[in-house]
Amino acid sequence: MAEPLRIALAGLGTVGAGVVRLLEANSALVARRAGRPIEITAVSARERGKDRGVDLTPYAWVDDMQAMAGRTDVDVVVELVGGSDGPALTLARAALDAGKGLVTANKAMIAHHGLALAELAALHGAPLRFEAAVAGGIPVVKGLREGASANTIERIYGILNGTCNYILSEMERTGGDFADMLRGAQDQGFAEADPAFDIEGVDAAHKLAILAAIGFGARIDFAAVATTGIGEVSAADIAQADALGFVIRLVGVASLSTREGETPHLLQRVRPCLVPRGHPLAHVTGATNAVVAEGDFVGRLLFQGAGAGDGPTASAVVADLIDIARGDRTAPFSVPVAELEAFPKADPGHRLGRDYIRFTVTDRPGVLAEITAAMRDAGVSIESLIQRGRASNGGDVLVAMVTHEGPERCVTKAVDLLSGSPSLTAPPLVMPILKD
Amino acid sequence: MAEPLRIALAGLGTVGAGVVRLLEANSALVARRAGRPIEITAVSARERGKDRGVDLTPYAWVDDMQAMAGRTDVDVVVELVGGSDGPALTLARAALDAGKGLVTANKAMIAHHGLALAELAALHGAPLRFEAAVAGGIPVVKGLREGASANTIERIYGILNGTCNYILSEMERTGGDFADMLRGAQDQGFAEADPAFDIEGVDAAHKLAILAAIGFGARIDFAAVATTGIGEVSAADIAQADALGFVIRLVGVASLSTREGETPHLLQRVRPCLVPRGHPLAHVTGATNAVVAEGDFVGRLLFQGAGAGDGPTASAVVADLIDIARGDRTAPFSVPVAELEAFPKADPGHRLGRDYIRFTVTDRPGVLAEITAAMRDAGVSIESLIQRGRASNGGDVLVAMVTHEGPERCVTKAVDLLSGSPSLTAPPLVMPILKD
Repeated sequence: MAEPLRIALAGLGTVGAGVVRLLEANSALVARRAGRPIEITAVSARERGKDRGVDLTPYAWVDDMQAMAGRTDVDVVVELVGGSDGPALTLARAALDAGKGLVTANKAMIAHHGLALAELAALHGAPLRFEAAVAGGIPVVKGLREGASANTIERIYGILNGTCNYILSEMERTGGDFADMLRGAQDQGFAEADPAFDIEGVDAAHKLAILAAIGFGARIDFAAVATTGIGEVSAADIAQADALGFVIRLVGVASLSTREGETPHLLQRVRPCLVPRGHPLAHVTGATNAVVAEGDFVGRLLFQGAGAGDGPTASAVVADLIDIARGDRTAPFSVPVAELEAFPKADPGHRLGRDYIRFTVTDRPGVLAEITAAMRDAGVSIESLIQRGRASNGGDVLVAMVTHEGPERCVTKAVDLLSGSPSLTAPPLVMPILKD
Repeated sequence: MAEPLRIALAGLGTVGAGVVRLLEANSALVARRAGRPIEITAVSARERGKDRGVDLTPYAWVDDMQAMAGRTDVDVVVELVGGSDGPALTLARAALDAGKGLVTANKAMIAHHGLALAELAALHGAPLRFEAAVAGGIPVVKGLREGASANTIERIYGILNGTCNYILSEMERTGGDFADMLRGAQDQGFAEADPAFDIEGVDAAHKLAILAAIGFGARIDFAAVATTGIGEVSAADIAQADALGFVIRLVGVASLSTREGETPHLLQRVRPCLVPRGHPLAHVTGATNAVVAEGDFVGRLLFQGAGAGDGPTASAVVADLIDIARGDRTAPFSVPVAELEAFPKADPGHRLGRDYIRFTVTDRPGVLAEITAAMRDAGVSIESLIQRGRASNGGDVLVAMVTHEGPERCVTKAVDLLSGSPSLTAPPLVMPILKD
């Protein structure tokens, strides 16, 4: 058997410890599939003494993880430190600069600096892999980059954040409100103490930007992802959606407009959406992730599995290492980084689709007339409308509607027409309806 | 850009024509992702004159497709002729013998001769790829071979035949019987005029044997796949299953027993199964395919998409070609063919699980006592039982039950005890319940 692939592991949190466990438990199988052993040479983390449930004595301990990039006994650096910049980025750059391979689970770093790192990797002929950065254990980076590589990708969308999906599906199951479910998720360890990155959609946006780059051959443009979190979704919205035949999910959607004779524009959005109950994403509950890629020849592909956790993430990290050990040198974003295209950002107003709009209004005569007049004036055609009677405690009334298919700019205009109206007691909530 | 990868296309049915269309439509994109153009050099089929909706004039026409293996202007032969033996196999062998790559969509040939072909490929250093042989456009061969490569695979199962799934889900939707749905499927082109390979489960068994080899590092053993088709599933079974919270699907299941200190045994079965309504496979309707792989670190991965059709199959064929053009030389079954293990066939009697058993009996006193006594004597514990009243046209009565979890051999014994009983007017139908 050939020489081992020697790796250095920076970061020994749950994922890092998971990688150590995996390489211990499945070492023979990994070596068979990789064509050679994969061996940990050096490890590094902030606290040396901490009990991580794995035996680290066989590996060299490195106090300054930046030193890993310079070690002659290391072929690949595995970066599991996290953070888009700072030590993780410094290490990533140094490793590639030294001609070493880099494997990372760091979605923030790839979303912000993936292109620069891919350029470094190309310059030094070093492999760069980040399967674990998107949707945990699901091999969707590979599925898109290689499995669907014969297709012009038309749309990529999916449930990319397990915390949000857990909260939304728990709200659905129990009828409870967002704040309660968030506390439940935190108690059960599904949500961080500071859950902003998750519930505001930033984590999903990182992943979406990476998938869009691979699927469309686009230069990553994280700043162009329009992101809305799930904080405004109420139990009442979920009940209305249910009555109309939908569930609510936080969905990241990327699509490339391809109108004859026009420059293609890239639309990237993370938003709570209404998903028709017959759609595969409607059945994705709990912390599960799922990604759909639609290609011109393959049609709709669905990849589903655990989007986080030490085991699944370690599985993705080691799959990348096996690819590198096998000699795979596929470009990290499917085409060489120099060939990635910078697509301008699409105007979401051009989107043709159906929308759900929820108004919170005072309970007095004429409000419905005011709302429907605004819809008419903005050119929005209403497919169905539900007005819920006043809550027993008095107060506001909910008006929820679903529009017929039309340009999104009309819905935006309707909402603008109503802004400032004394009838509305809260800003309206608009959620796109996912096409079936 | 590097030299083109030159391919010869043997077989110009719907899939062959699809490959031509794809390579025309997406040539620039394919070249960017492959790092070099992929060009058709020569084509061959039985009838030269037939209109296939594609322009074949740019390519050399070869009357005797076997001559393709000898052409110096061909790097990879794409075999889309079909049939486990005969001309397809002769061509496959000749191509590999000549050191050319081989890409095929031929599940029967790989299930029967995949090992011999992989040996030839290894001997000559030639790439062998067959993504399109399993589940059409879904990149599940790659997903298992590479995406899940860090895992000890515990179980692989899925809906592997679109025709059967279309028939079963149509029976479910309409309440109709098997024969009517089969005719409908044939009218709509979902089923062949001779549907035996599909409805008897042979096609699914081919695919399962291939997946099991990759997932478990096993020598393909198609003969060991225990296969039962869907011909015995009645509208009444579907109704009973529904009442009990299940849908019925034809599921291929492969698992490797891993009892401490025992030789691992491989269980491979294709059978109609009851799938709990909360399981992802329960939502797979129509001609869609779906495969689940369960790994020790990644947990449950689901791959879903179009399992057949010219576009999806061409997508898989060209993805293989792109891999080859990129220089990928991963072993076709994940580990070198010489390292694949020959696992003995597992005794399904050892399987611990729940089963659905349906009896068709004469409507007279004592029949239920006879059946339940046999269950007791065989050690089968009944979880629920439904006896449907006599049909309005008189005749037989249906007794359907679901067992508690237990060894399958007990169910077999109970059925044996009742065999020959004059109370039974048809052989009982046993269907395993898929674990949730």
